[in-house]
Amino acid sequence: MRGDHSSDDEAVEHQDGGRRRTAAEEARTLVSAVTVGYLATLGENGDPWCSLVVYGPDPDGNPVLLVSTMAEHGRNLASDARASLAINDPSATGDPLDRPRITLAGRAVQPEGEAAEAALDAHVAAIPGARLYAGWEDFSLWILEVERVRWVGGFAQMDTISREDYRAAEPDPTQPIAAKAIEHLNKSHADGLLAIARELAGARGAVAAVCTGVDRYGIDLSCTGAGQAAAARVEFDAPLTQAADVRPATVELAQRARALQESR
Amino acid sequence: MRGDHSSDDEAVEHQDGGRRRTAAEEARTLVSAVTVGYLATLGENGDPWCSLVVYGPDPDGNPVLLVSTMAEHGRNLASDARASLAINDPSATGDPLDRPRITLAGRAVQPEGEAAEAALDAHVAAIPGARLYAGWEDFSLWILEVERVRWVGGFAQMDTISREDYRAAEPDPTQPIAAKAIEHLNKSHADGLLAIARELAGARGAVAAVCTGVDRYGIDLSCTGAGQAAAARVEFDAPLTQAADVRPATVELAQRARALQESR
Repeated sequence: MRGDHSSDDEAVEHQDGGRRRTAAEEARTLVSAVTVGYLATLGENGDPWCSLVVYGPDPDGNPVLLVSTMAEHGRNLASDARASLAINDPSATGDPLDRPRITLAGRAVQPEGEAAEAALDAHVAAIPGARLYAGWEDFSLWILEVERVRWVGGFAQMDTISREDYRAAEPDPTQPIAAKAIEHLNKSHADGLLAIARELAGARGAVAAVCTGVDRYGIDLSCTGAGQAAAARVEFDAPLTQAADVRPATVELAQRARALQESR
Repeated sequence: MRGDHSSDDEAVEHQDGGRRRTAAEEARTLVSAVTVGYLATLGENGDPWCSLVVYGPDPDGNPVLLVSTMAEHGRNLASDARASLAINDPSATGDPLDRPRITLAGRAVQPEGEAAEAALDAHVAAIPGARLYAGWEDFSLWILEVERVRWVGGFAQMDTISREDYRAAEPDPTQPIAAKAIEHLNKSHADGLLAIARELAGARGAVAAVCTGVDRYGIDLSCTGAGQAAAARVEFDAPLTQAADVRPATVELAQRARALQESR
């Protein structure tokens, strides 16, 4: 199954096995899931200035900003196009230094004509209220054309991503419903998860399994048994292409696990 | 009572009356309440770079950072001391552009000797786990000496604060317990709040009052009556100097309101 996917050889392999999102896919997924970031721009004398912005990503993952020239960052971009946007996952908890985050660095350009319309659509898709400001004279549309990406997954998990890899990667289509799917699996399908852990994740001695992650490539489990806990990963039969695939794919895993259970 | 406090003439006056925190006090309070910010630094060729940091403020409100020279921002600070830190209130909800936030801009310096010990203490007071890293060779302590502050309270509410005003202002000592106090007042003292609204806030026709804010200078209420809602503010008898003063000060307001109620 894995050979079906052209970017398979880029996948990060972990010790618990099973394909995972690449660093570039993590970055694209995070940029698509969040709408708030912090922008570093250059002020007078080239002094760095950091400020909160909202954005929507264009199809290449370039953040589209709509900023007022009355704001310091708006004036800064107009005089020097260099900028850097830091984004973190606001739903993550625990030590802030251990949470997934990225920095996108590049140059901001002002799109014109059809490109401006497409950019505005990308911004408004993420920030619906923004269409109101778009017509105001002091508001300008900027596309941060990403040249370099630094991704931090947590402690000791980081990578630099090239412009090309970032552009080529897809945001994970299952991200928008992943948290809800995890909650549902743990609440209503504890027996199915345990069968998956025992039969498909190799955790034969498990007495309980909790789902800790769902993505387009598979699910993460925390398995417990004999007083010990271990992380495990089970891949889907094929990468999912839409959020609606999560349900049938997890049902398929549970069915496959139960069939193995009964065959023994 | 208001004449007792020397910085009274700096207080922002709102239409609903009653002394409020100044912009400088808001900034110092926010910096003390939060431990995570986004740092803009200058990389090679003066390119801006934005990244997440954790900090603890020193007694002047200057953020103390402990960063690795292996991290991009660590290398950047070592080659150019100019930096800017953006902080927002993570507990605020609603439109991100309407939430309180600040940017502190200045220069990062590496303290030595006793100053380094005091700076480390300030950092560790906010980030207890950091003492572990302090002894590592690649970690350096930096104090961002604030030269300029931009405060945004929300839509159309912003101010630039000088270095002097920022240093001179105090963080609100009641901030750490304000959210809990609001919850307690609304849950257990609805009758007291209503008496305060009617007798002390001039909302004679109110049939209900909800506490929406508590700070060292007073409380904010949302009063409803005759199908209408209005914001009101009631000042404490004197500015509070510690979190433990919130309880007796609110009890005093309720007693004063009830005494007026009974005298009529």
